[in-house]
Amino acid sequence: MPSFVVVGHRARTAGDFSLNDMPGSAGRMDILCRCVNTSFFLSHDLRRDVELTLVLCGEPDPPKTVLLRGSELRYLSPDERSAGSLLKKALALPCGETFRESTPGVYVRRAGFAEAVQGQDTGVLDEHGEDLRRAAVLPARFLLADHMDFSDEEKDRIRTLPAFSVGPRSLHADHVITTVLNELDRRNAGWTS
Amino acid sequence: MPSFVVVGHRARTAGDFSLNDMPGSAGRMDILCRCVNTSFFLSHDLRRDVELTLVLCGEPDPPKTVLLRGSELRYLSPDERSAGSLLKKALALPCGETFRESTPGVYVRRAGFAEAVQGQDTGVLDEHGEDLRRAAVLPARFLLADHMDFSDEEKDRIRTLPAFSVGPRSLHADHVITTVLNELDRRNAGWTS
Repeated sequence: MPSFVVVGHRARTAGDFSLNDMPGSAGRMDILCRCVNTSFFLSHDLRRDVELTLVLCGEPDPPKTVLLRGSELRYLSPDERSAGSLLKKALALPCGETFRESTPGVYVRRAGFAEAVQGQDTGVLDEHGEDLRRAAVLPARFLLADHMDFSDEEKDRIRTLPAFSVGPRSLHADHVITTVLNELDRRNAGWTS
Repeated sequence: MPSFVVVGHRARTAGDFSLNDMPGSAGRMDILCRCVNTSFFLSHDLRRDVELTLVLCGEPDPPKTVLLRGSELRYLSPDERSAGSLLKKALALPCGETFRESTPGVYVRRAGFAEAVQGQDTGVLDEHGEDLRRAAVLPARFLLADHMDFSDEEKDRIRTLPAFSVGPRSLHADHVITTVLNELDRRNAGWTS
Protein backbone atom coordinates (compact mmCIF):
# COMPACT_ATOMS: atom_id res chain seq x y z
CA MET A 1 0.00 0.00 0.00
CA PRO A 2 1.70 3.26 -1.06
CA SER A 3 1.41 6.06 1.41
CA PHE A 4 2.33 9.74 1.29
CA VAL A 5 3.04 12.19 4.08
CA VAL A 6 2.78 15.90 3.21
CA VAL A 7 3.80 18.64 5.64
CA GLY A 8 1.73 21.83 5.48
CA HIS A 9 4.03 24.20 7.30
CA ARG A 10 1.46 26.97 7.66
CA ALA A 11 -1.74 25.02 7.09
CA ARG A 12 -4.46 26.17 9.46
CA THR A 13 -5.29 23.80 12.32
CA ALA A 14 -8.92 24.80 12.84
CA GLY A 15 -12.04 24.26 10.76
CA ASP A 16 -12.83 27.96 10.54
CA PHE A 17 -11.15 28.76 7.24
CA SER A 18 -13.03 29.84 4.11
CA LEU A 19 -13.15 27.52 1.10
CA ASN A 20 -12.90 30.73 -0.95
CA ASP A 21 -9.51 31.66 0.49
CA MET A 22 -7.55 28.44 0.93
CA PRO A 23 -4.26 29.84 -0.47
CA GLY A 24 -4.44 32.84 1.87
CA SER A 25 -5.87 32.73 5.37
CA ALA A 26 -5.95 28.92 5.41
CA GLY A 27 -2.15 28.79 5.03
CA ARG A 28 -1.85 27.23 1.56
CA MET A 29 -4.50 24.62 2.34
CA ASP A 30 -4.99 24.56 -1.47
CA ILE A 31 -1.71 22.63 -1.82
CA LEU A 32 -2.90 19.95 0.60
CA CYS A 33 -6.24 19.76 -1.24
CA ARG A 34 -4.45 19.14 -4.53
CA CYS A 35 -2.38 16.44 -2.83
CA VAL A 36 -5.66 14.79 -1.81
CA ASN A 37 -6.77 14.93 -5.45
CA THR A 38 -3.59 13.46 -6.92
CA SER A 39 -3.27 10.79 -4.22
CA PHE A 40 -6.69 9.29 -4.78
CA PHE A 41 -8.21 10.08 -8.15
CA LEU A 42 -8.15 7.80 -11.14
CA SER A 43 -10.40 8.40 -14.10
CA HIS A 44 -13.88 7.44 -12.82
CA ASP A 45 -12.37 5.61 -9.86
CA LEU A 46 -10.43 6.07 -6.62
CA ARG A 47 -7.06 4.61 -5.65
CA ARG A 48 -8.36 2.45 -2.82
CA ASP A 49 -4.88 1.24 -1.85
CA VAL A 50 -3.38 4.68 -1.08
CA GLU A 51 -3.10 6.44 2.28
CA LEU A 52 -2.31 10.13 2.66
CA THR A 53 -1.18 11.76 5.89
CA LEU A 54 -1.29 15.56 6.13
CA VAL A 55 0.73 17.19 8.89
CA LEU A 56 -0.65 20.67 9.57
CA CYS A 57 1.62 23.07 11.43
CA GLY A 58 -0.16 26.42 11.16
CA GLU A 59 -2.15 28.46 13.66
CA PRO A 60 -4.17 28.34 15.86
CA ASP A 61 -3.68 24.86 17.32
CA PRO A 62 -0.60 23.09 15.87
CA PRO A 63 0.26 20.40 15.21
CA LYS A 64 -2.59 18.29 13.86
CA THR A 65 -2.47 15.28 11.60
CA VAL A 66 -5.21 14.30 9.15
CA LEU A 67 -5.14 10.79 7.70
CA LEU A 68 -7.10 9.86 4.57
CA ARG A 69 -7.58 6.19 3.69
CA GLY A 70 -8.50 5.42 0.07
CA SER A 71 -10.14 2.16 1.10
CA GLU A 72 -12.74 3.96 3.20
CA LEU A 73 -13.07 7.41 1.60
CA ARG A 74 -16.49 8.77 0.70
CA TYR A 75 -17.92 12.17 -0.25
CA LEU A 76 -14.73 13.20 -2.06
CA SER A 77 -14.90 14.86 -5.48
CA PRO A 78 -11.84 15.91 -7.51
CA ASP A 79 -12.19 19.68 -7.04
CA GLU A 80 -10.22 21.59 -4.41
CA ARG A 81 -13.33 22.74 -2.57
CA SER A 82 -14.45 19.16 -2.03
CA ALA A 83 -11.16 18.16 -0.41
CA GLY A 84 -11.14 21.46 1.51
CA SER A 85 -14.60 20.74 2.85
CA LEU A 86 -13.53 17.32 4.21
CA LEU A 87 -10.41 18.87 5.79
CA LYS A 88 -12.53 21.63 7.39
CA LYS A 89 -14.78 19.01 8.97
CA ALA A 90 -11.80 17.05 10.29
CA LEU A 91 -10.13 20.15 11.70
CA ALA A 92 -13.35 21.30 13.38
CA LEU A 93 -13.49 18.08 15.42
CA PRO A 94 -12.06 18.19 18.96
CA CYS A 95 -9.27 15.63 19.00
CA GLY A 96 -6.68 13.98 21.23
CA GLU A 97 -3.67 11.82 20.57
CA THR A 98 -5.51 8.94 18.92
CA PHE A 99 -7.17 9.18 15.52
CA ARG A 100 -10.82 10.12 15.45
CA GLU A 101 -12.93 9.74 12.30
CA SER A 102 -14.62 12.88 11.01
CA THR A 103 -16.15 11.56 7.76
CA PRO A 104 -15.71 8.09 6.20
CA GLY A 105 -11.99 7.49 5.62
CA VAL A 106 -10.86 10.81 7.16
CA TYR A 107 -9.25 10.81 10.62
CA VAL A 108 -7.72 13.54 12.75
CA ARG A 109 -5.45 13.55 15.78
CA ARG A 110 -3.12 15.83 17.69
CA ALA A 111 0.28 14.85 16.30
CA GLY A 112 3.04 16.36 14.21
CA PHE A 113 6.08 15.63 12.09
CA ALA A 114 7.84 13.35 14.57
CA GLU A 115 4.89 10.97 14.80
CA ALA A 116 4.28 11.05 11.05
CA VAL A 117 7.75 9.79 10.15
CA GLN A 118 7.99 7.11 12.84
CA GLY A 119 8.28 3.45 11.92
CA GLN A 120 7.72 2.10 8.43
CA ASP A 121 9.94 2.11 5.37
CA THR A 122 10.10 5.81 4.38
CA GLY A 123 11.79 7.78 1.58
CA VAL A 124 12.00 11.53 1.14
CA LEU A 125 10.99 13.06 -2.19
CA ASP A 126 13.64 15.62 -2.94
CA GLU A 127 15.02 16.98 -6.20
CA HIS A 128 18.55 16.00 -5.11
CA GLY A 129 17.68 12.36 -4.43
CA GLU A 130 18.26 9.20 -6.47
CA ASP A 131 16.34 8.99 -9.73
CA LEU A 132 13.06 7.28 -8.83
CA ARG A 133 12.95 5.40 -12.13
CA ARG A 134 16.38 3.89 -11.55
CA ALA A 135 15.80 2.84 -7.94
CA ALA A 136 15.66 -0.93 -7.66
CA VAL A 137 13.38 -0.80 -4.64
CA LEU A 138 11.00 1.97 -3.63
CA PRO A 139 9.87 2.68 -0.08
CA ALA A 140 6.33 2.06 1.14
CA ARG A 141 5.97 5.63 2.37
CA PHE A 142 6.99 8.88 0.67
CA LEU A 143 7.53 12.15 2.53
CA LEU A 144 7.07 15.59 0.92
CA ALA A 145 6.96 19.22 2.00
CA ASP A 146 4.48 21.82 0.76
CA HIS A 147 5.72 25.09 -0.81
CA MET A 148 8.24 25.55 2.03
CA ASP A 149 11.34 23.44 2.46
CA PHE A 150 11.66 21.13 5.48
CA SER A 151 12.74 23.05 8.59
CA ASP A 152 16.16 22.40 10.12
CA GLU A 153 14.52 20.41 12.90
CA GLU A 154 12.61 18.30 10.36
CA LYS A 155 15.77 17.79 8.32
CA ASP A 156 17.52 16.50 11.42
CA ARG A 157 14.84 13.84 11.85
CA ILE A 158 15.02 12.60 8.26
CA ARG A 159 18.76 12.92 7.67
CA THR A 160 19.29 9.17 7.43
CA LEU A 161 16.31 8.41 5.17
CA PRO A 162 16.89 7.64 1.48
CA ALA A 163 15.90 10.43 -0.90
CA PHE A 164 14.32 10.06 -4.34
CA SER A 165 13.87 12.54 -7.17
CA VAL A 166 11.17 12.32 -9.84
CA GLY A 167 12.99 14.46 -12.39
CA PRO A 168 15.33 17.34 -13.14
CA ARG A 169 12.92 20.14 -12.24
CA SER A 170 11.51 21.15 -8.89
CA LEU A 171 7.78 20.41 -8.85
CA HIS A 172 4.77 21.12 -6.66
CA ALA A 173 4.02 18.41 -4.08
CA ASP A 174 0.82 17.29 -5.83
CA HIS A 175 2.63 16.89 -9.16
CA VAL A 176 5.33 14.83 -7.44
CA ILE A 177 2.66 12.48 -6.06
CA THR A 178 1.18 12.03 -9.56
CA THR A 179 4.61 11.14 -10.91
CA VAL A 180 5.39 8.66 -8.12
CA LEU A 181 2.02 6.93 -8.54
CA ASN A 182 2.62 6.66 -12.29
CA GLU A 183 5.95 4.95 -11.60
CA LEU A 184 4.29 2.59 -9.10
CA ASP A 185 1.44 1.84 -11.56
CA ARG A 186 3.98 0.94 -14.22
CA ARG A 187 6.01 -1.29 -11.91
CA ASN A 188 2.90 -3.04 -10.60
CA ALA A 189 1.69 -3.72 -14.14
CA GLY A 190 5.10 -4.91 -15.32
CA TRP A 191 5.63 -2.02 -17.74
CA THR A 192 9.35 -1.63 -18.21
CA SER A 193 10.76 1.66 -19.34
CA MET B 1 7.57 24.27 -27.20
CA PRO B 2 5.22 21.59 -25.80
CA SER B 3 1.57 22.33 -26.19
CA PHE B 4 -1.58 20.68 -24.91
CA VAL B 5 -5.14 20.80 -26.19
CA VAL B 6 -7.87 19.80 -23.74
CA VAL B 7 -11.50 19.43 -24.80
CA GLY B 8 -14.08 20.43 -22.21
CA HIS B 9 -17.14 18.74 -23.62
CA ARG B 10 -19.62 20.50 -21.34
CA ALA B 11 -17.51 23.45 -20.18
CA ARG B 12 -19.58 26.61 -20.02
CA THR B 13 -18.93 29.15 -22.78
CA ALA B 14 -19.90 32.30 -20.90
CA GLY B 15 -18.25 34.16 -18.04
CA ASP B 16 -21.30 33.93 -15.81
CA PHE B 17 -20.39 30.79 -13.86
CA SER B 18 -19.68 30.75 -10.13
CA LEU B 19 -16.17 30.00 -8.91
CA ASN B 20 -17.91 28.15 -6.07
CA ASP B 21 -19.58 25.66 -8.41
CA MET B 22 -17.11 24.90 -11.18
CA PRO B 23 -17.77 21.12 -11.17
CA GLY B 24 -21.53 21.67 -11.43
CA SER B 25 -23.12 24.54 -13.33
CA ALA B 26 -19.84 25.45 -15.05
CA GLY B 27 -19.70 22.03 -16.75
CA ARG B 28 -16.63 20.54 -15.07
CA MET B 29 -14.65 23.75 -15.48
CA ASP B 30 -12.66 22.46 -12.47
CA ILE B 31 -10.97 19.90 -14.73
CA LEU B 32 -9.82 22.62 -17.13
CA CYS B 33 -8.58 24.71 -14.18
CA ARG B 34 -6.46 21.81 -12.95
CA CYS B 35 -5.08 21.39 -16.46
CA VAL B 36 -4.02 25.06 -16.31
CA ASN B 37 -2.27 24.33 -13.01
CA THR B 38 -0.40 21.24 -14.19
CA SER B 39 0.54 22.78 -17.56
CA PHE B 40 2.26 25.82 -16.11
CA PHE B 41 3.34 25.42 -12.51
CA LEU B 42 6.81 24.52 -11.37
CA SER B 43 7.88 24.98 -7.78
CA HIS B 44 8.22 28.77 -7.41
CA ASP B 45 8.25 29.22 -11.19
CA LEU B 46 6.13 28.92 -14.34
CA ARG B 47 6.76 26.78 -17.41
CA ARG B 48 7.24 29.65 -19.83
CA ASP B 49 7.64 27.36 -22.84
CA VAL B 50 4.22 25.65 -22.58
CA GLU B 51 1.01 26.54 -24.39
CA LEU B 52 -2.40 25.23 -23.40
CA THR B 53 -5.49 25.36 -25.60
CA LEU B 54 -8.87 24.72 -24.00
CA VAL B 55 -11.77 23.88 -26.31
CA LEU B 56 -15.05 24.60 -24.53
CA CYS B 57 -18.15 22.95 -25.94
CA GLY B 58 -20.82 23.64 -23.31
CA GLU B 59 -23.76 26.02 -23.25
CA PRO B 60 -24.66 28.81 -23.89
CA ASP B 61 -22.43 29.81 -26.80
CA PRO B 62 -20.31 26.89 -28.07
CA PRO B 63 -17.70 26.42 -29.24
CA LYS B 64 -15.08 28.75 -27.79
CA THR B 65 -11.33 28.29 -27.54
CA VAL B 66 -9.15 29.76 -24.82
CA LEU B 67 -5.39 29.82 -25.39
CA LEU B 68 -2.92 30.29 -22.50
CA ARG B 69 0.71 31.11 -23.29
CA GLY B 70 3.23 30.44 -20.53
CA SER B 71 5.61 33.05 -21.93
CA GLU B 72 3.11 35.86 -21.33
CA LEU B 73 0.96 34.64 -18.43
CA ARG B 74 0.38 36.88 -15.43
CA TYR B 75 -2.01 36.93 -12.46
CA LEU B 76 -2.13 33.12 -12.29
CA SER B 77 -1.86 31.34 -8.93
CA PRO B 78 -1.86 27.56 -8.49
CA ASP B 79 -5.33 27.22 -6.97
CA GLU B 80 -8.39 26.29 -9.02
CA ARG B 81 -10.18 29.57 -8.28
CA SER B 82 -7.31 31.57 -9.74
CA ALA B 83 -7.40 29.69 -13.05
CA GLY B 84 -11.21 29.82 -12.96
CA SER B 85 -11.11 33.57 -12.54
CA LEU B 86 -8.91 34.03 -15.62
CA LEU B 87 -11.16 31.71 -17.65
CA LYS B 88 -14.26 33.64 -16.50
CA LYS B 89 -12.71 36.89 -17.73
CA ALA B 90 -11.80 35.34 -21.08
CA LEU B 91 -15.26 33.86 -21.55
CA ALA B 92 -16.96 37.15 -20.65
CA LEU B 93 -15.21 38.92 -23.53
CA PRO B 94 -17.15 39.25 -26.79
CA CYS B 95 -15.07 37.42 -29.41
CA GLY B 96 -14.89 36.61 -33.10
CA GLU B 97 -12.83 34.17 -35.12
CA THR B 98 -9.42 35.65 -34.28
CA PHE B 99 -7.85 35.47 -30.83
CA ARG B 100 -8.47 38.39 -28.51
CA GLU B 101 -6.44 38.87 -25.31
CA SER B 102 -8.43 39.02 -22.07
CA THR B 103 -5.59 39.16 -19.52
CA PRO B 104 -1.84 38.83 -20.17
CA GLY B 105 -1.20 35.50 -21.89
CA VAL B 106 -4.88 34.50 -22.09
CA TYR B 107 -6.69 34.68 -25.43
CA VAL B 108 -10.19 33.72 -26.54
CA ARG B 109 -11.83 33.14 -29.90
CA ARG B 110 -14.85 31.49 -31.45
CA ALA B 111 -13.47 28.15 -32.59
CA GLY B 112 -13.83 24.48 -31.75
CA PHE B 113 -12.26 21.06 -32.06
CA ALA B 114 -11.64 21.17 -35.81
CA GLU B 115 -9.56 24.36 -35.58
CA ALA B 116 -7.71 23.15 -32.45
CA VAL B 117 -6.33 20.03 -34.12
CA GLN B 118 -5.40 21.63 -37.45
CA GLY B 119 -1.77 21.77 -38.61
CA GLN B 120 1.17 20.95 -36.33
CA ASP B 121 2.60 17.66 -35.20
CA THR B 122 -0.09 16.25 -32.86
CA GLY B 123 -0.46 13.09 -30.78
CA VAL B 124 -3.48 11.88 -28.85
CA LEU B 125 -3.08 10.90 -25.19
CA ASP B 126 -5.02 7.71 -24.83
CA GLU B 127 -4.62 4.74 -22.53
CA HIS B 128 -4.49 2.41 -25.55
CA GLY B 129 -1.63 4.27 -27.24
CA GLU B 130 2.09 3.55 -27.48
CA ASP B 131 3.99 3.76 -24.20
CA LEU B 132 5.17 7.39 -23.98
CA ARG B 133 8.45 6.38 -22.36
CA ARG B 134 9.30 4.01 -25.21
CA ALA B 135 8.42 6.40 -28.03
CA ALA B 136 11.55 7.48 -29.89
CA VAL B 137 10.02 10.81 -30.90
CA LEU B 138 7.23 12.69 -29.18
CA PRO B 139 4.86 15.12 -30.89
CA ALA B 140 4.93 18.87 -30.30
CA ARG B 141 1.26 18.96 -29.40
CA PHE B 142 -0.74 16.58 -27.19
CA LEU B 143 -4.51 16.23 -27.34
CA LEU B 144 -6.65 15.14 -24.36
CA ALA B 145 -10.32 14.91 -23.45
CA ASP B 146 -11.82 15.91 -20.12
CA HIS B 147 -13.92 13.42 -18.11
CA MET B 148 -15.85 12.43 -21.25
CA ASP B 149 -14.38 10.41 -24.08
CA PHE B 150 -13.92 12.02 -27.50
CA SER B 151 -17.19 12.08 -29.46
CA ASP B 152 -17.57 9.98 -32.62
CA GLU B 153 -17.17 13.10 -34.73
CA GLU B 154 -13.99 14.06 -32.87
CA LYS B 155 -12.66 10.50 -33.19
CA ASP B 156 -13.18 10.69 -36.94
CA ARG B 157 -10.99 13.77 -37.12
CA ILE B 158 -8.11 12.27 -35.13
CA ARG B 159 -8.28 8.71 -36.42
CA THR B 160 -4.92 8.99 -38.22
CA LEU B 161 -3.00 10.69 -35.41
CA PRO B 162 -0.50 8.68 -33.33
CA ALA B 163 -1.66 7.84 -29.80
CA PHE B 164 0.44 7.71 -26.65
CA SER B 165 -0.26 6.26 -23.22
CA VAL B 166 1.40 7.43 -20.00
CA GLY B 167 0.78 4.23 -18.09
CA PRO B 168 -1.42 1.24 -17.40
CA ARG B 169 -4.20 3.10 -15.58
CA SER B 170 -6.71 5.61 -16.86
CA LEU B 171 -5.92 9.02 -15.34
CA HIS B 172 -7.50 12.45 -15.11
CA ALA B 173 -6.44 14.86 -17.87
CA ASP B 174 -4.45 17.08 -15.48
CA HIS B 175 -2.52 14.09 -14.12
CA VAL B 176 -1.70 13.00 -17.68
CA ILE B 177 -0.27 16.46 -18.42
CA THR B 178 1.95 16.24 -15.32
CA THR B 179 3.24 12.86 -16.45
CA VAL B 180 3.94 14.01 -20.01
CA LEU B 181 5.80 17.11 -18.80
CA ASN B 182 7.89 14.94 -16.46
CA GLU B 183 8.89 12.77 -19.42
CA LEU B 184 9.74 15.87 -21.50
CA ASP B 185 11.74 17.37 -18.61
CA ARG B 186 13.76 14.17 -18.33
CA ARG B 187 14.42 13.96 -22.06
CA ASN B 188 15.40 17.63 -22.26
CA ALA B 189 17.83 17.22 -19.35
CA GLY B 190 19.30 13.99 -20.74
CA TRP B 191 17.98 11.80 -17.91
CA THR B 192 17.71 8.30 -19.28
CA SER B 193 15.41 5.82 -17.64
